[in-house]
Amino acid sequence: MIQKYIYGDPIETDAVIKEIPTSEGHPSYGTISTQDGFSFTYIMQPEDIVYGLGESNRGINKRGFLYVSNCTDEPNHTEDKQSLYGAHNFIIVDGINHSFGLFVDYPTNLTFDIGYTRQDTLSITCADADLKLYVIDGSDAYDITRQFRHIIGRSYIPPRFAFGFGQSRWGYEKPEDFRKVVSEHRKAHVPLDMVYMDIDYMDGYKDFTVNTEAFPDFKGFVDEMKEDHIHLVPIIDAGVKIEEGYDAYEEGLAGDYFCKKEDGSNFEAAVWPGLTHFPDVLNPAARAWFGQKYDSLLSQGIDAFWNDMNEPAIFYTPEGMAEKQKITKELLSGDSKYPPVAIFYLMSGNDISSDYARMYHKIDGKLVCHNKVHNLFGYNMTRAASEAFAKLVPDRRILLFSRSSYIGMHRYGGIWTGDNKSWWSHILLCLKMLPGLNMCGFLYVGCDLGGFGENTTRDLLLRFLALGVFTPLMRNHSATRTREQEFYQFEDPQDFAAVIGVRYRLLPYLYSEYMKAALGDDLYFKPLAFTYSDDAVARQIEDQLMLGNEIMIAPVYTQNAAGRPVYLPEEMIFVKFLADGTILQEKWEKGWHFAEVALNEVPLFIRKDHKIPVVDVAEYVDAIDMTTLQYIGYTDADYELYTDDGITPIA
Amino acid sequence: MIQKYIYGDPIETDAVIKEIPTSEGHPSYGTISTQDGFSFTYIMQPEDIVYGLGESNRGINKRGFLYVSNCTDEPNHTEDKQSLYGAHNFIIVDGINHSFGLFVDYPTNLTFDIGYTRQDTLSITCADADLKLYVIDGSDAYDITRQFRHIIGRSYIPPRFAFGFGQSRWGYEKPEDFRKVVSEHRKAHVPLDMVYMDIDYMDGYKDFTVNTEAFPDFKGFVDEMKEDHIHLVPIIDAGVKIEEGYDAYEEGLAGDYFCKKEDGSNFEAAVWPGLTHFPDVLNPAARAWFGQKYDSLLSQGIDAFWNDMNEPAIFYTPEGMAEKQKITKELLSGDSKYPPVAIFYLMSGNDISSDYARMYHKIDGKLVCHNKVHNLFGYNMTRAASEAFAKLVPDRRILLFSRSSYIGMHRYGGIWTGDNKSWWSHILLCLKMLPGLNMCGFLYVGCDLGGFGENTTRDLLLRFLALGVFTPLMRNHSATRTREQEFYQFEDPQDFAAVIGVRYRLLPYLYSEYMKAALGDDLYFKPLAFTYSDDAVARQIEDQLMLGNEIMIAPVYTQNAAGRPVYLPEEMIFVKFLADGTILQEKWEKGWHFAEVALNEVPLFIRKDHKIPVVDVAEYVDAIDMTTLQYIGYTDADYELYTDDGITPIA
Repeated sequence: MIQKYIYGDPIETDAVIKEIPTSEGHPSYGTISTQDGFSFTYIMQPEDIVYGLGESNRGINKRGFLYVSNCTDEPNHTEDKQSLYGAHNFIIVDGINHSFGLFVDYPTNLTFDIGYTRQDTLSITCADADLKLYVIDGSDAYDITRQFRHIIGRSYIPPRFAFGFGQSRWGYEKPEDFRKVVSEHRKAHVPLDMVYMDIDYMDGYKDFTVNTEAFPDFKGFVDEMKEDHIHLVPIIDAGVKIEEGYDAYEEGLAGDYFCKKEDGSNFEAAVWPGLTHFPDVLNPAARAWFGQKYDSLLSQGIDAFWNDMNEPAIFYTPEGMAEKQKITKELLSGDSKYPPVAIFYLMSGNDISSDYARMYHKIDGKLVCHNKVHNLFGYNMTRAASEAFAKLVPDRRILLFSRSSYIGMHRYGGIWTGDNKSWWSHILLCLKMLPGLNMCGFLYVGCDLGGFGENTTRDLLLRFLALGVFTPLMRNHSATRTREQEFYQFEDPQDFAAVIGVRYRLLPYLYSEYMKAALGDDLYFKPLAFTYSDDAVARQIEDQLMLGNEIMIAPVYTQNAAGRPVYLPEEMIFVKFLADGTILQEKWEKGWHFAEVALNEVPLFIRKDHKIPVVDVAEYVDAIDMTTLQYIGYTDADYELYTDDGITPIA
Repeated sequence: MIQKYIYGDPIETDAVIKEIPTSEGHPSYGTISTQDGFSFTYIMQPEDIVYGLGESNRGINKRGFLYVSNCTDEPNHTEDKQSLYGAHNFIIVDGINHSFGLFVDYPTNLTFDIGYTRQDTLSITCADADLKLYVIDGSDAYDITRQFRHIIGRSYIPPRFAFGFGQSRWGYEKPEDFRKVVSEHRKAHVPLDMVYMDIDYMDGYKDFTVNTEAFPDFKGFVDEMKEDHIHLVPIIDAGVKIEEGYDAYEEGLAGDYFCKKEDGSNFEAAVWPGLTHFPDVLNPAARAWFGQKYDSLLSQGIDAFWNDMNEPAIFYTPEGMAEKQKITKELLSGDSKYPPVAIFYLMSGNDISSDYARMYHKIDGKLVCHNKVHNLFGYNMTRAASEAFAKLVPDRRILLFSRSSYIGMHRYGGIWTGDNKSWWSHILLCLKMLPGLNMCGFLYVGCDLGGFGENTTRDLLLRFLALGVFTPLMRNHSATRTREQEFYQFEDPQDFAAVIGVRYRLLPYLYSEYMKAALGDDLYFKPLAFTYSDDAVARQIEDQLMLGNEIMIAPVYTQNAAGRPVYLPEEMIFVKFLADGTILQEKWEKGWHFAEVALNEVPLFIRKDHKIPVVDVAEYVDAIDMTTLQYIGYTDADYELYTDDGITPIA
């Protein structure tokens, strides 16, 4: 049962799309105060687990930290970070006595203190008591999750090719760069369906343009790639460059589609292109205009996009820069109370909250400060694209995912988990985020395999990929100036072919489970506790996941490990895809085991009395030969295989 | 067998103190080149493990990363960091075919590429082919380690009180701050032997001074603390403030004891006090002078010190600042090729290598650039203190440890592992460093429990402490402006009393094992592989350690975990110190187990046919009642208890 409570005068987010009557009074859980902003306080029992928060730091169990929903361009995902790129305000308290879900529909800074200040106290607070609070009762955490998923609407469904493997790097500039990626993969028989185009494909980082010097015939290049069964995935950034004669800029000015300053002039912020205006995607007219701009690429054959920098990221604003320059000049002239060394301390960091305070949206004809609606920006940029696709290409699914998001955006696109690092701990961080993301509606998700920032190593990349085999979005991506991390930068390329190949062998299963989860408002990734809720050990496992209804995954995430300990909550079949293409199957008893897994192997566990389909390896999704399909596991079991054409949108 | 090879004209480091004849030719392992600097290259087998490198990032097995020996004030110990505070150039290749140790005695930047560039290739390189290379053959990695330890001399032995618990925080300023720490501990019966004095006790951050406004009778205050069985541990920084009339400055000038610039004038660098000179501790006369300065505090009753900022850390130099100001002015005036935003990028970070290039030491009467001897500075600062103590207080052990170090310094003091963070991953990082530190001679070691930077939580602090129970240096330390993390900042203080109390119950065992390791050139902490070298699983365990000859430790290091999986290489007795003071003992079979450990409990494992002494809890080391000693474990076994007065230096 779901109850909706309205406090004050909430801003409409369109997160929830099912009509729910408003309840009077207060929820039966916790204590609410609207005296000084809003607060919800609840005393947790020691055994209670708290799930949710989607893209957030720390564990599957969110207890023991303080999280702030505040979409942030944060490239250092260390354990102390309270905010990442998304704001996913849904939690479930899975208690011994009481279990309930909470969705706090509030579009800007919101704090979840989940046993940080006191270990037993859950406290949710925000500055304005203007919000909708949804309280969900259910039989258990899984039931509560499905009820929530039902009211926020069906998750985004990508085209089937988006379940292939993609190669990316910030730094590919010219057709030769992309052709090299494709030819190296094809030559070594490493499957590949997508190559990503980071910011360098554009003309001066201008959205919806292509560098015509590098790509004199872009459509021809897109076609050439398609002949090789490769989908190009260009990036689109939030900021529209201020440049006379540039069509997006001129149209935005003419239509009055840009975000404002308080005086009604257009807000300016520097990002990759230099000074830009942000499209006011919270305004339906501006959203429709911005979405329609994607047609310039769609019409050249592009069928896949990633939206970036849409927190929105800001390098500086002219006003913020002027303030910093004033401080710097005072320091240099000796008129400051700070010693000279302070230059380097004061100048470091980049607090853009005062920039956001100068930015405004036009909502229902009124100017609303960005700080009141901050977490809706990336959501509505992606919604802009998705709503336009429905009109421009109504008969086709388009791959679309975003860096910033809010619940509601899960209907329009997927997300990747932003700028992670080539750290072993980031394999595990990615794994831990996956079930929470699913709970919040985001099914098409994945992290930058190999790590975006810093330098990867061969073994790290292989272990990252062996997790990525299971994430709907499977992409190797890295930043400029880091060690190059395409598979062919390392010795023994056949090991990469083996690991990435497993993705394609499992694709019928992964696609089936994705589609069932999407169509049934269900989970693709689940904590073990959702399947084995009575198993006290399973309830606290933070490094294994259930995937669909049939399998458990337990990736290796430590360096120099020949394997890892794994907990089996029941008898299962240990499956290992070996480098020679054979599949090892061993029946293992309930309990602790050490699973040996070499760098070129991929392990999984099939639940008792379940089976999964596997096919022969293929070099791209459309080449998968379904006549090679066989079942492994408990082969007497039933399995419902889902198939469709992978392209037609689902009504 | 140890062979010494000399290349070029090495700088004497005094790391090795045993005479070893120089071998001709090249080592029998690997390939050496002295063509372009120095390089040693060796092809590793897949099963080979590489140990060593002391205070360094990543795992017990050092394979898969690139490490640079370059003592660095690095406050962000993320996985990508190649250099920390120490330079410990000893590794062991523990191979299926060959095992050997290598000590590269070279006092500045040295790179260990241990399977980073290619997974199978170990490559050690440095710029100048002027070094001593020690190659050690032995029956196994443990034997090789002990041979190495034997040639570098006996490890530092602290007074016994240094095995108590210490409370620290950057921010304690006044006697009331320290009194509060002590009274809160005594009131709650949380044992305490030491309170640390970070930089705020000094007069303007001037070494060997005390803020007399806060401490009008410092000796009286030291005595007052002693009556409460508390040892104060003041910090000493490397830089001596430039201030007329300040005795250390005046004496250093008069004696010509400071580091130089190339023109022979004194080198200036800003640290906490503002501009300072660095004592030229590589010059024996300056070292003797600087060491003798500690007497100003010894003579007031102080018997414990920590040496800090001795990489040496530099905030800026006047020359470096002038260069940065020039760039800034160009940027502000528009004369620069960079856009204004570049101010914030160019100014961030603090590359001090050009500062070091302007700094010189006087060695044997000749000016030697700091960059040639960089890793010896902290070592010799600590040596200065230790050599002075031997003269000033020959009948007493003084507690002494350092942030920066080089092998050789292990004879003079301990180290702490620098400015870690309140991250769960830093519990494990600390654990993984411990055996490598021991291999390199550093036995008196520990990390900042609870984490130095960022904000701790109650559960994190308790789990950190449950590892700290076993580290010779057991200190809760945190940075100013982080969440306060003395135990009394959190609910249920009795849980902290329980965990810290276990340290005191185990102290006879821990002290015995420390002394045996120190006197026998042996290890206090060992990888499991050193004890169970034939056990393939044990060989790759990275989160359990052997401590002394009797026990194995397996701390819990993940949040919200009710315990952890543990591998037993043989039957052992699982021991859990419970919060009520009782001790649970259970015999467990060889294999994988899940050990349940509550936040207020401390686990350990006693090896088959071994026993350990435990005593009743005491509130400080000197209050331990040895008549309460009993043995737990396999009580028929033998145990050699080591006891002494804990104060008299060992000849």
